[in-house]
Amino acid sequence: MKKKILAKDTLVITSKIVLPNDTNTLGNLFGGQLLAWMDNCAAIAAGRFCRRVVVTASVGNVSFNHPIKLADVVTLEAKVSRSFSSSMEVVIDVFTDGIGNNERKKCATGIYNFVAVDQHGSTIEVPELVPETDLEKERHKAALRRKQLSLILAGKLNPEKATELKALFFSEGNQAK
Amino acid sequence: MKKKILAKDTLVITSKIVLPNDTNTLGNLFGGQLLAWMDNCAAIAAGRFCRRVVVTASVGNVSFNHPIKLADVVTLEAKVSRSFSSSMEVVIDVFTDGIGNNERKKCATGIYNFVAVDQHGSTIEVPELVPETDLEKERHKAALRRKQLSLILAGKLNPEKATELKALFFSEGNQAK
Amino acid sequence: MKKKILAKDTLVITSKIVLPNDTNTLGNLFGGQLLAWMDNCAAIAAGRFCRRVVVTASVGNVSFNHPIKLADVVTLEAKVSRSFSSSMEVVIDVFTDGIGNNERKKCATGIYNFVAVDQHGSTIEVPELVPETDLEKERHKAALRRKQLSLILAGKLNPEKATELKALFFSEGNQAK
Amino acid sequence: MKKKILAKDTLVITSKIVLPNDTNTLGNLFGGQLLAWMDNCAAIAAGRFCRRVVVTASVGNVSFNHPIKLADVVTLEAKVSRSFSSSMEVVIDVFTDGIGNNERKKCATGIYNFVAVDQHGSTIEVPELVPETDLEKERHKAALRRKQLSLILAGKLNPEKATELKALFFSEGNQAK
Amino acid sequence: MKKKILAKDTLVITSKIVLPNDTNTLGNLFGGQLLAWMDNCAAIAAGRFCRRVVVTASVGNVSFNHPIKLADVVTLEAKVSRSFSSSMEVVIDVFTDGIGNNERKKCATGIYNFVAVDQHGSTIEVPELVPETDLEKERHKAALRRKQLSLILAGKLNPEKATELKALFFSEGNQAK
Amino acid sequence: MKKKILAKDTLVITSKIVLPNDTNTLGNLFGGQLLAWMDNCAAIAAGRFCRRVVVTASVGNVSFNHPIKLADVVTLEAKVSRSFSSSMEVVIDVFTDGIGNNERKKCATGIYNFVAVDQHGSTIEVPELVPETDLEKERHKAALRRKQLSLILAGKLNPEKATELKALFFSEGNQAK
Repeated sequence: MKKKILAKDTLVITSKIVLPNDTNTLGNLFGGQLLAWMDNCAAIAAGRFCRRVVVTASVGNVSFNHPIKLADVVTLEAKVSRSFSSSMEVVIDVFTDGIGNNERKKCATGIYNFVAVDQHGSTIEVPELVPETDLEKERHKAALRRKQLSLILAGKLNPEKATELKALFFSEGNQAK
Repeated sequence: MKKKILAKDTLVITSKIVLPNDTNTLGNLFGGQLLAWMDNCAAIAAGRFCRRVVVTASVGNVSFNHPIKLADVVTLEAKVSRSFSSSMEVVIDVFTDGIGNNERKKCATGIYNFVAVDQHGSTIEVPELVPETDLEKERHKAALRRKQLSLILAGKLNPEKATELKALFFSEGNQAK
Repeated sequence: MKKKILAKDTLVITSKIVLPNDTNTLGNLFGGQLLAWMDNCAAIAAGRFCRRVVVTASVGNVSFNHPIKLADVVTLEAKVSRSFSSSMEVVIDVFTDGIGNNERKKCATGIYNFVAVDQHGSTIEVPELVPETDLEKERHKAALRRKQLSLILAGKLNPEKATELKALFFSEGNQAK
Repeated sequence: MKKKILAKDTLVITSKIVLPNDTNTLGNLFGGQLLAWMDNCAAIAAGRFCRRVVVTASVGNVSFNHPIKLADVVTLEAKVSRSFSSSMEVVIDVFTDGIGNNERKKCATGIYNFVAVDQHGSTIEVPELVPETDLEKERHKAALRRKQLSLILAGKLNPEKATELKALFFSEGNQAK
Repeated sequence: MKKKILAKDTLVITSKIVLPNDTNTLGNLFGGQLLAWMDNCAAIAAGRFCRRVVVTASVGNVSFNHPIKLADVVTLEAKVSRSFSSSMEVVIDVFTDGIGNNERKKCATGIYNFVAVDQHGSTIEVPELVPETDLEKERHKAALRRKQLSLILAGKLNPEKATELKALFFSEGNQAK
Repeated sequence: MKKKILAKDTLVITSKIVLPNDTNTLGNLFGGQLLAWMDNCAAIAAGRFCRRVVVTASVGNVSFNHPIKLADVVTLEAKVSRSFSSSMEVVIDVFTDGIGNNERKKCATGIYNFVAVDQHGSTIEVPELVPETDLEKERHKAALRRKQLSLILAGKLNPEKATELKALFFSEGNQAK
């Protein structure tokens, strides 16, 4: 039987100051830099979950909602949302808290997929993720729909069999919920 | 009438050597580092297309097919695949050519979306992208399906109206084609 | 009357993976790199506390207890320990959690002092820090002793008047407690 | 008998230009960046002294006296101040010489402690440091007081036995003298 | 008989955005940063030519004609110009294409020499470079003159024997042609 | 009359540890990294000489004599060798001193040319460089020959008039002497 790990035990938090070199000519954080930070933070969450070396398999979707400014403090929060046989989906939320005020603003959300590997790079089985809160459960469910969608897009799953995915076409929530 | 730009005129090529700091404990290139390189290369392609400052709006999908090793030479090729009113989709292909042999291997493909902005960060209109080759035309078409899918996922488009997208559910190709 | 901020509201957490470039020839994290990470994390805590730009005034003491290895995940936890008129002391604890096991190990502790400044670089008043837990209270008290010691060492306080400090010479705990 | 090394033979000088990425929103050099530079420079001095791999054991005290500006040239001068059985104390002075004028200004002083280790990370004996100038002798003496203070703070030395340290409580100089 | 490689098959293109950290106080790209980028790009060209690890042996001449600005897109184009027994000369041209306009401007040209080495660092033979276009042929010829000049400067060739070089003293072109 | 500056007053020394990211697959320092370090060090020397912002105009010649290894300590010594109306030539010598022994080895020499500019980027006059030691005088003379050679190569000087340069064709010393 698979080992079970609570979603909350995979939470990884990281705070960073946006430096001049991270910004474009408008003084905003470069998307590429944020993508790299998200990957790092998510990889730590996946590694904490399976206690193995993990490699990024794919990036499902990242949306940037608000520009992040030079000198802003960026906080990333990554949590494993679901595990499959040897892969894990991690959802990363990105917030800023400006120096001069108290408002915390959500700036981006990302979906990253990791695979656990041994020393030779072969994939190995990972534990089972147990969601507890409502948000964790919602994201756990959405992760399956995203998996099915990616299998269909890759021609590896018959759309008829993706029962979970059909719900998505009538759901009103956003993908990263 | 909108200015028209040929897809081939937006091509940006970049070659890099993978350095120790770009690698994980298996000696492979970190996913996050590659995501940042892809964003940079794609942003130059989008900027060359619209001659404006561009900001990353979202990352549609990035899949990593083969590990990239320390000291490998990585070549990124980015080309605008379709433009919308003020946004552009860019497809980036990533190849390696090992030092010791001649085989060029495709390691990853990514879909990035950019928005053109003026000095105040407001969005502005971009030219029309004209695809010429078969691959350019295929990707131009796929870009529309991806746009519709992302609108449905965000609850902003009725699935019934996404005629282009329906085709996708019966297509056998992969998303980045 | 000064605004009061709870110690727990100043907590900043940051997790990082140790990359090849952060290590010396023994494969251990360079002290200098960790010092810079601690400063960054502590500066965010101080900035979150006073909602102002802060500058590092001095580093009171940093002790490295265990070597940190390549590919280890390092977690820094910074919290303001006491505020004075325009300065703040921040204590930073550094932990590692190895990929292959569950043990969390404390690797270093540091004491950093920051000053809050306005746009012209002039010092400005900061809120009052309110400790709640036992550890927060202990560190709040120790911060005063450290302040007195540094004033004596700088020849700005008569040792006779440092009543708090005298206790320290009979305490058995370590400075960062 | 221990090998003897003159203090002047351990001097390491390093000059750097402050780049945009090294600065905060006020355009001043980040404290954390300077701490890392000091550690690097001091580690070279300690390594030159004992001809071994050295690791940072602790940072005794670093005080920042004047802000350092973007584009300033920063010069660090590190010299071993005293050696113990397998450890060494290094004092680092930091100066700036502005582009537009001739004045050299002392901006910071730091005290770093290093331990010499063999290939397995075990500590090994280091040579004896021989001070010659007045400043070298003063710092050689102060290093002993700092050692005693840190042992007392760690509960490893009875304050009664720290005869050298008692003098410090009546000295008017600053710690880094 | 030596393997032959066409000059065009050694072409390496790399595009980069100039970031704040790459610039001096005038907002122009640092020469040192460009030198490093040129070396990287040229090393990939040399490696693609000989399919071996290459090390920089010398830099013959680099001239900077126009300042490159923050946020400019810099494109480097490197091509092997001639091969000798175990060394190769690479010419690198540097262009900028500003975001706001279409003009491509040549900003710098550099001449770098590389040596092919095996795993132990010993030099090994490289293929023969075959120039095709007029520019490739001109640079192929100029490379020999530069080789002779450097041998004379090093006291390893009698100026009388450098017949190719004499022509250079009456040529009106620039060195990097 | 021009201000005079002694060559020795322009000396800039910088020591660095070679980190993993600075090395190629053989574990040797990348040429491009060393070129950037040399440019930085030389720019500080030129700036110290003329007390102005300086920009790299060209790199005359850099030769790498011995590979530099990971963890080696590299020391760069830059000194202005001659000044012209608004430009300066700087010679940079690069040494290593291995951790485990006492031998100082010369690994590279470089010749860099800088131009002094005002805030608008226009060139401005620089002081006169006064050589004192034999080596300083030799390099002062060689700088003129190099200047003439570069003017001839650029087609801006009639070889007949380069009296200083003719001597070079019969000298046996190396260019950087």
